[in-house]
Amino acid sequence: MIERDACAALDAADKLAPLRNQFDLPHGVIYLDGNSLGAQPKSAAARAAQVVAREWGTDLIRSWNKAGWFELPARLGDKLAPLIGAGAGEVVVTDSTSINLFKALAAALAIQAGKPLAAGRKVIVTERSNFPTDIYIAQGLTTWLDRGYTLLPVDSAEQLATAIDADTAVVMLTHANYRTGALHDMRGVTAQAHRHGALIIWDLAHSAGAVAVDVTADHADFAVGCTYKYLNGGPGAPAFIWVAPRHQDSFRHPLSGWWSHAAPFAMQPSYEPAGGIRRALCGTQPIVSLAMVECGLDIFAQTGMAAIRSKSLALTDLFIALVEQRCAGHPLALATPRAHQQRGSHVSFAHPHGYGVMQALIERGVIGDYREPSIMRFGFTPLYTRFVDVWDAVDMLVDILDGEKFSRDGPHESVT
Amino acid sequence: MIERDACAALDAADKLAPLRNQFDLPHGVIYLDGNSLGAQPKSAAARAAQVVAREWGTDLIRSWNKAGWFELPARLGDKLAPLIGAGAGEVVVTDSTSINLFKALAAALAIQAGKPLAAGRKVIVTERSNFPTDIYIAQGLTTWLDRGYTLLPVDSAEQLATAIDADTAVVMLTHANYRTGALHDMRGVTAQAHRHGALIIWDLAHSAGAVAVDVTADHADFAVGCTYKYLNGGPGAPAFIWVAPRHQDSFRHPLSGWWSHAAPFAMQPSYEPAGGIRRALCGTQPIVSLAMVECGLDIFAQTGMAAIRSKSLALTDLFIALVEQRCAGHPLALATPRAHQQRGSHVSFAHPHGYGVMQALIERGVIGDYREPSIMRFGFTPLYTRFVDVWDAVDMLVDILDGEKFSRDGPHESVT
Repeated sequence: MIERDACAALDAADKLAPLRNQFDLPHGVIYLDGNSLGAQPKSAAARAAQVVAREWGTDLIRSWNKAGWFELPARLGDKLAPLIGAGAGEVVVTDSTSINLFKALAAALAIQAGKPLAAGRKVIVTERSNFPTDIYIAQGLTTWLDRGYTLLPVDSAEQLATAIDADTAVVMLTHANYRTGALHDMRGVTAQAHRHGALIIWDLAHSAGAVAVDVTADHADFAVGCTYKYLNGGPGAPAFIWVAPRHQDSFRHPLSGWWSHAAPFAMQPSYEPAGGIRRALCGTQPIVSLAMVECGLDIFAQTGMAAIRSKSLALTDLFIALVEQRCAGHPLALATPRAHQQRGSHVSFAHPHGYGVMQALIERGVIGDYREPSIMRFGFTPLYTRFVDVWDAVDMLVDILDGEKFSRDGPHESVT
Repeated sequence: MIERDACAALDAADKLAPLRNQFDLPHGVIYLDGNSLGAQPKSAAARAAQVVAREWGTDLIRSWNKAGWFELPARLGDKLAPLIGAGAGEVVVTDSTSINLFKALAAALAIQAGKPLAAGRKVIVTERSNFPTDIYIAQGLTTWLDRGYTLLPVDSAEQLATAIDADTAVVMLTHANYRTGALHDMRGVTAQAHRHGALIIWDLAHSAGAVAVDVTADHADFAVGCTYKYLNGGPGAPAFIWVAPRHQDSFRHPLSGWWSHAAPFAMQPSYEPAGGIRRALCGTQPIVSLAMVECGLDIFAQTGMAAIRSKSLALTDLFIALVEQRCAGHPLALATPRAHQQRGSHVSFAHPHGYGVMQALIERGVIGDYREPSIMRFGFTPLYTRFVDVWDAVDMLVDILDGEKFSRDGPHESVT
């Protein structure tokens, strides 16, 4: 049996432990939902105040140059790039994940249509269990385009092998599944797509900042993701998009706003895309929300994804072991793959009264979340989650389950 | 000759004058660029701090419900609606103006294509002098769509009369021209478009909050605009989109993210658009930037667009009169139409060394901006611009021009 003291010893030996002090965490709360909304870096309040009071209030319009507002998407993109194995000039932070996915999908279809041999490619392969907005964006695009493109959603990672073929234009997958935390083999699936002449778009929403992603080594084509989960950029903070250097010259998407123009301030009457990743931009960005993304990235800059991934696996291993040891008599079923290489940084357990159990946990200050059907999600963010937090959270879960201190009512609406 | 005392008397009699106290304006600055980036409401700093420290920092994921984050786009849309003559449930604040224009244009083309009689409509009529990003978005959409749509840019408002015909699918115009401040006759042009079976999209970027727009009375189809100019929402704050109630059921755009789903939290595998204006949403919004939009709107709620328009015209009349009186010997040419119904709330003068003159003004604390070729723009925002500010700004201009205290160097890049 793992004791709390052993967890405290793990914290004492944890080289990432001091980074927790850089976050403002509410008292009396064990926050296991950083996979949905990351915690607030202490520097965020000061950064917001600086942008609002000085850059906006005092310097006003002059801040576009003086405070470098116009360069923020590319400058933050360069800071984010190493976390996903990308290089400088390959990432911009801008718009929402849904919109960036649209850009990538639209550009990928156009690249494929431009190849005479690929004229027949009309299929977009995805997973039925993909985060719904990814599927909605593909549906919206293909329906509106009305050119015979179809969406082929598979029901398991194994089915991808047969689903991807010579008709596949684009494979569009989320790296870590939002419900189960199951992680795709990025290198393997990318190679599979390429073998059949398809392009691949990875949604890194649930893996950027949690898993040691390497889009370059894995030879991915495009990636998008959000900054407000593991990257701690703030609620709804602008998302990111990465385009492999080999595709940048041919990357054309229809959201061709002035921020992606080769000469945005020349006010030319005709659209001419900028070189490099800037052509993935569209219009003016929400500067206050965007600026705060840097606060989270600056904490990542003090460590590396290998150390983060290592602690993430240790935390999730501990959580799984403790739940299985201490809640053995309860109807809990692990929904997350057990193998390290097959999971991200959140762990999901199904329970027939998962909604009620999670509500009871939240009322007692252990904040995870609930997803239909019957899934309790627990996210582990190595920058601020301690090993004793894991022990305390499970201890609370034991208390609730053993004491039957949960409601058997059904679920209500909740937010991702 | 108009004296400064007369201007001070106008301020003393101005019912909007007290509202200036609700803005944090830098000392020693006469800010005449609120048409590009509006000034900071005093409440904005506290609102940002509240969202960052309490809603994000303390309440974390619970704020999606507790702080009403998910409802912000619609709630702020309802607050903005009266400023443009729209009703409740017709406006959302979301994404950027460029992206909202894309949604409106994509939806309008789809509505037109759905009419059998209109199958031949392939032309989008706009103005060559439209704000470039509007043209770029239309170019990007039609190029990528590759369905024979073409853009027809006219060179004057008069040419619209002949350009709009039975081939016109959509007319896409900016209400107040970003360079000259020239204002279209919304009712007249809309009627003209409708007579030929075309739909019309109005970009209100330079008129919302400055001109008494009435999209309902003028029978417009769609409108978009930004909140960071006259509406004082903060740098790059999310934009707005209005869809006439008669088009809401048929409004389908391809940026169909989960925030526009009929049941966004049900995580259904298939896209089903929400009823009403919510279907114009796409993905998760930048909450901190979005929340601050309310600070500007709350100031507008204390007055009305008729009072604002009336003061706007008085300010701009005064500015034109003073410049023409006091700078009579200098090569200044009014680029803005003189008639009230033909202009918005900024006034542009051309000067052969406009760039150098504007730089000299800015160095002395009179902040306007410059647009090629040779155009000096001066924006007048009735909520915080005083009549004495107008007098003092012109006095500074006189000093610079009479003393030849400006550079004859050419322009450099500047931001809208």
